[in-house]
Amino acid sequence: MSTFGSFFRVTTYGESHCKSVGCIVDGVPPGLDITEADIQPQLTRRRPGQSKLSTPRNEKDRVFIQSGTEYGKTLGTSIGMLVANEDQRPKDYSETDLYPRPSHADFTYLKKYGTKASSGGGRSSARETIGRVAAGAIADKFLEKANGVEIVAFTSQIGQVKMNRDVQDPKFIEILNTITRDEVDAAGPVRCPDSEAAPKMVEEIEKYRDSKDSIGGVVTCVIRNCPIGLGEPVFDKLEALLAHAMLSIPASKGFEIGSGFEGVQIPGSKHNDPFYLEEETGRFRTKTNNSGGIQGGISNGENIYFSVAFKSAATISQEQPTAQYNGSKGVLAAKGRHDPAVTPRAIPIVEAMASIVIADTLLMQKSREYTQTLFNKE
Amino acid sequence: MSTFGSFFRVTTYGESHCKSVGCIVDGVPPGLDITEADIQPQLTRRRPGQSKLSTPRNEKDRVFIQSGTEYGKTLGTSIGMLVANEDQRPKDYSETDLYPRPSHADFTYLKKYGTKASSGGGRSSARETIGRVAAGAIADKFLEKANGVEIVAFTSQIGQVKMNRDVQDPKFIEILNTITRDEVDAAGPVRCPDSEAAPKMVEEIEKYRDSKDSIGGVVTCVIRNCPIGLGEPVFDKLEALLAHAMLSIPASKGFEIGSGFEGVQIPGSKHNDPFYLEEETGRFRTKTNNSGGIQGGISNGENIYFSVAFKSAATISQEQPTAQYNGSKGVLAAKGRHDPAVTPRAIPIVEAMASIVIADTLLMQKSREYTQTLFNKE
Amino acid sequence: MSTFGSFFRVTTYGESHCKSVGCIVDGVPPGLDITEADIQPQLTRRRPGQSKLSTPRNEKDRVFIQSGTEYGKTLGTSIGMLVANEDQRPKDYSETDLYPRPSHADFTYLKKYGTKASSGGGRSSARETIGRVAAGAIADKFLEKANGVEIVAFTSQIGQVKMNRDVQDPKFIEILNTITRDEVDAAGPVRCPDSEAAPKMVEEIEKYRDSKDSIGGVVTCVIRNCPIGLGEPVFDKLEALLAHAMLSIPASKGFEIGSGFEGVQIPGSKHNDPFYLEEETGRFRTKTNNSGGIQGGISNGENIYFSVAFKSAATISQEQPTAQYNGSKGVLAAKGRHDPAVTPRAIPIVEAMASIVIADTLLMQKSREYTQTLFNKE
Amino acid sequence: MSTFGSFFRVTTYGESHCKSVGCIVDGVPPGLDITEADIQPQLTRRRPGQSKLSTPRNEKDRVFIQSGTEYGKTLGTSIGMLVANEDQRPKDYSETDLYPRPSHADFTYLKKYGTKASSGGGRSSARETIGRVAAGAIADKFLEKANGVEIVAFTSQIGQVKMNRDVQDPKFIEILNTITRDEVDAAGPVRCPDSEAAPKMVEEIEKYRDSKDSIGGVVTCVIRNCPIGLGEPVFDKLEALLAHAMLSIPASKGFEIGSGFEGVQIPGSKHNDPFYLEEETGRFRTKTNNSGGIQGGISNGENIYFSVAFKSAATISQEQPTAQYNGSKGVLAAKGRHDPAVTPRAIPIVEAMASIVIADTLLMQKSREYTQTLFNKE
Repeated sequence: MSTFGSFFRVTTYGESHCKSVGCIVDGVPPGLDITEADIQPQLTRRRPGQSKLSTPRNEKDRVFIQSGTEYGKTLGTSIGMLVANEDQRPKDYSETDLYPRPSHADFTYLKKYGTKASSGGGRSSARETIGRVAAGAIADKFLEKANGVEIVAFTSQIGQVKMNRDVQDPKFIEILNTITRDEVDAAGPVRCPDSEAAPKMVEEIEKYRDSKDSIGGVVTCVIRNCPIGLGEPVFDKLEALLAHAMLSIPASKGFEIGSGFEGVQIPGSKHNDPFYLEEETGRFRTKTNNSGGIQGGISNGENIYFSVAFKSAATISQEQPTAQYNGSKGVLAAKGRHDPAVTPRAIPIVEAMASIVIADTLLMQKSREYTQTLFNKE
Repeated sequence: MSTFGSFFRVTTYGESHCKSVGCIVDGVPPGLDITEADIQPQLTRRRPGQSKLSTPRNEKDRVFIQSGTEYGKTLGTSIGMLVANEDQRPKDYSETDLYPRPSHADFTYLKKYGTKASSGGGRSSARETIGRVAAGAIADKFLEKANGVEIVAFTSQIGQVKMNRDVQDPKFIEILNTITRDEVDAAGPVRCPDSEAAPKMVEEIEKYRDSKDSIGGVVTCVIRNCPIGLGEPVFDKLEALLAHAMLSIPASKGFEIGSGFEGVQIPGSKHNDPFYLEEETGRFRTKTNNSGGIQGGISNGENIYFSVAFKSAATISQEQPTAQYNGSKGVLAAKGRHDPAVTPRAIPIVEAMASIVIADTLLMQKSREYTQTLFNKE
Repeated sequence: MSTFGSFFRVTTYGESHCKSVGCIVDGVPPGLDITEADIQPQLTRRRPGQSKLSTPRNEKDRVFIQSGTEYGKTLGTSIGMLVANEDQRPKDYSETDLYPRPSHADFTYLKKYGTKASSGGGRSSARETIGRVAAGAIADKFLEKANGVEIVAFTSQIGQVKMNRDVQDPKFIEILNTITRDEVDAAGPVRCPDSEAAPKMVEEIEKYRDSKDSIGGVVTCVIRNCPIGLGEPVFDKLEALLAHAMLSIPASKGFEIGSGFEGVQIPGSKHNDPFYLEEETGRFRTKTNNSGGIQGGISNGENIYFSVAFKSAATISQEQPTAQYNGSKGVLAAKGRHDPAVTPRAIPIVEAMASIVIADTLLMQKSREYTQTLFNKE
Repeated sequence: MSTFGSFFRVTTYGESHCKSVGCIVDGVPPGLDITEADIQPQLTRRRPGQSKLSTPRNEKDRVFIQSGTEYGKTLGTSIGMLVANEDQRPKDYSETDLYPRPSHADFTYLKKYGTKASSGGGRSSARETIGRVAAGAIADKFLEKANGVEIVAFTSQIGQVKMNRDVQDPKFIEILNTITRDEVDAAGPVRCPDSEAAPKMVEEIEKYRDSKDSIGGVVTCVIRNCPIGLGEPVFDKLEALLAHAMLSIPASKGFEIGSGFEGVQIPGSKHNDPFYLEEETGRFRTKTNNSGGIQGGISNGENIYFSVAFKSAATISQEQPTAQYNGSKGVLAAKGRHDPAVTPRAIPIVEAMASIVIADTLLMQKSREYTQTLFNKE
């Protein structure tokens, strides 16, 4: 279904060529300052056509709040938002319409719904993510105001070019500790804050662009100042909710928290994060952070960081031998130019989904702390 | 919360030293043959103490169905199940009780709940997974009867020893196509079906066991004969639900579907899975399966396969310098012997969670297909 | 929260003076013919200003589908719909703004959200129901196409004037068996199909209108051709879901199914509905229908009928002594003319909520029947 | 499904003749004192065989907590509870097994699940309510400790004998303000606190008992000291959740809040509840309470009171002409003695469900108040 979250809850609608795409955000606390100006920047960061590396289509994507705020403050009631689709005609795909596009959703939608998917990819269209990003911007504002939470994502790999994301590496740790969204954008079109890796990533993308091909990548995200105690012990561990959120993003193929897949090679004696009391702050902290800020499914106050793998975009203008719906063999080539690397554009979407998860679990935990205080008085 | 699933829904209870652990499984279709004999085998596979490699504690873990079946058939109503805890006394942890164990849930539970976690780890205890495995066994039986679905997990990495899980490799593909649970168990104590890698994995574990340390690993799981059309387009993509399920398993640190993290290096022209009509069966299939059986969030009928990373066990008998709850420095060493590699025991848990996800999405999809047929008649 | 339903799920947004009110309907089966023309009629029936008896404000309430359909057919994905608000300025309530209006939501919203409710009543405004009615119209179409289900509500009481709703009375039974929405509208402004009671109800309303007062009423609703087997045994009994749905309608104060409150006086020997085999149809039926079409929480194939009590409208132009927010005593009188009886306008809302409940439970049950057939083959 | 509540969540299992009945209660705040001694009293009040008026079967119904508490305090994790069934053999119903019992769930279960309902009524058995009552007792304790909430239900009607429940009547108001559970039990076997009506109710029940018949009744319930602000504006209005909860109780046929069905006859000028400032307490209150403590779906701090109609018990030992499953006509008579009036036994169940609803909405609201305070500081 098209709903995510329990306490802070987002429901989205819309596909490529319908009237609009949008969402309803429910559970937003009252009294929060919110106008379109808080939401538009992340939508703009999500837009295609922002650099020479990405597709030149120019979507405007202006968001309009429909409800749930008055005089620039949230009322506590559900917030409707929408972004008009500029091209609302179901497209004429003529010849290419004979083919289920390889590694797209055309075939599976047809089988699932018994009707050919909406032209342009239906709900699997990247435009679907607009509703998420709009909702995430509200979550961002709430978390920042309520707890000073900061959520920043960046590109850490394009194809074979990786920046160092070794959890013991001081440079990587420094980036996690300090990187801002502005710095990510200032780092250039691939949005990679590692100044050595970034230009190589650009080259990698250009190589595939020039051969009418595409290439995948990895986005890493850090959540700073996350309150302690978020996440639920069993099925709704914080990393499980984050994994759910991230794998729901189009084209994502993997998720890892903290030391992740590489971490399985580190023995317990080194992987365990020993505790210490930070004298200057009085905070109980861990010396290392292989756990990625979550232990037993619950945030421990350290930086939460995780990575998300994105596959090479399925739409390429190269010719691909494949089969038509009727089974006959043929060759398909997408018309026009296509984005050779969607990873950099996934960054605001990763941030949005992370923000929604943290807002949701924060509200849940707050209902508990009240009684906790109460009963401990006795 | 302790509930997972919407239409096939599991709710669990229990920690290490309470009376029993168990679950309620709701939404199980009526008329299915189910007795304890269908459930016990997976619980037994989950038990510690099954080989020289794992901890020698001998838990009995006999399951008793409380409700929801009559004369060996499901009634369609909720099924209660429980497994008694043999040691029900909250343990005396004396000295070690002064310490939040590094990379355990002790500290986060204390902060979340405002009360020291139940001795033995509370809900973060591995005994919590008993309810999941029992529920998964029912899902297994349902899926096998209804659609011939087969779900098999195996160890594909221990520490630095990896078996080949390259999605283009014929040997790996063959394993995905044919491996059975019996073969996995017959492959030896690490449950790795690669006869070259398996003995090296044993050595790897023994090395860490002998140094009172622990080591992590990776479990790979395949779902065969999954019906086409499972999963929802946006937030509840099939891989998102699987990721949620897997990252909810204790000690898991990562999830990848199909080509996963390695796949980001494969250009679109090679990563896309071209279609063809399989003449002998009339099935519309893909030549390669980088997608891992899911496209646009929806199963496409090919094998679904994914991998899950498990960190090195946090409990080691080596001495660890760390801090006490009161902030003073000290050295902690777990008493007794501890499992140096929990990965092989995670296998039935991975299978159980996969099975629950598939059962849940199958029931959801079935409600759709009914009307689909109906409206298409017009 | 603003979401209702599990399989057929409606989420709404909007208050009196925001940009628009609307909803997202998720889980609508694919392939169903739906355009605005299917939805507008119920929205029009809901509008104020349709007769001399009701308030003369003339809202237009034109609905626009935003997504989820293509070429007039549903895609199976979420359907966004919106209706613009014509008056989008937060109103100037000057003096009356000093008062929490008695038996309105002003006071409780203030306490719940810590901020004065949106002018015009916030989410407690009757405009909130537009989203429900739009969603209900889609459910109507689905149910009619899929199972020939008919849902018709009508006014059965205004103030002290009751039409006979004795479940043993042949005239009442006849109405339940045959009444249509067109006949209800044709019956005059109070929408009561009892030609004796209807004119007396008009008089009753006029009496209160002339004294600047208001009066309550009862709406009775029948669901015909409801498939057998809908509803869940324990918490989600069909009557429980209907009660939830009905008591969520603004101004409703009570719900009763079948024989209801009067039925408690009928001894079991008369209240029980004996079975018989209807020879001409082969259907197993009940001779009487005190149960109201539901037994053990599950529909039995007979007419489902229930009644909903609506209180006198809280907004009256008479002067009311009450207190200001600051505690000082005063007298409040609503400006302008106000609807003396909202009951007749509640009819399409009652129908909409009933339709959503039946669509939701039907989809749920359909997922079960598939396996039922399967396992019974053995 | 068998789950109720979102944040305070109850899942139940069990039918008449299985091993045990029980529940899992999730979301219970940590640090609350809970042992079996807190839960048993309400289970005992629920038991049949407590007076000459009810059936003499003597069920023991001893509850055992399985998990979620340690040293008599809740851990914050899910609480498993169970009550053994003493008679676990599926019964031999021989002849009567040929008949679907009129106004029972036999027929609808058969059609819903495609398999004959478990002997003894499956999940429609009154034993199903044990899990609810156990969960409700925990909610009671939480609410009492956290906010001094008191929830008391009593019989207000048996057949044609009604006690005055006019919301303007001082005697009724006095009962709502002061009645305790102990006083209700002390009032005699029908549990009616009106000393005039109570003996007549006994006579009414005896009359039907002597004719092997049964009779229905009404339970009224009051919730005192409910915090202001509980309930959600649109679909989850507090009265909607209560109605859902009450109509999910076996044999219930109606629900009304505050002035209810009678209230529709009261004009707005009298029905509206004017506000005043209570000088001695500084509380903003209403002079009358036709609203029943809820306005706009949200609690206003006044007493919440509502009534629930229960039909005459369907099981009677009189002969009933009806049809067998195979359609042939016959006469059915229940063997043994049967409870002629289940209404008095419904009282702890009504209290339990009310308590669960209030606990659930309280936890939800508490998450909001935190941020409310925060943002208002600005």
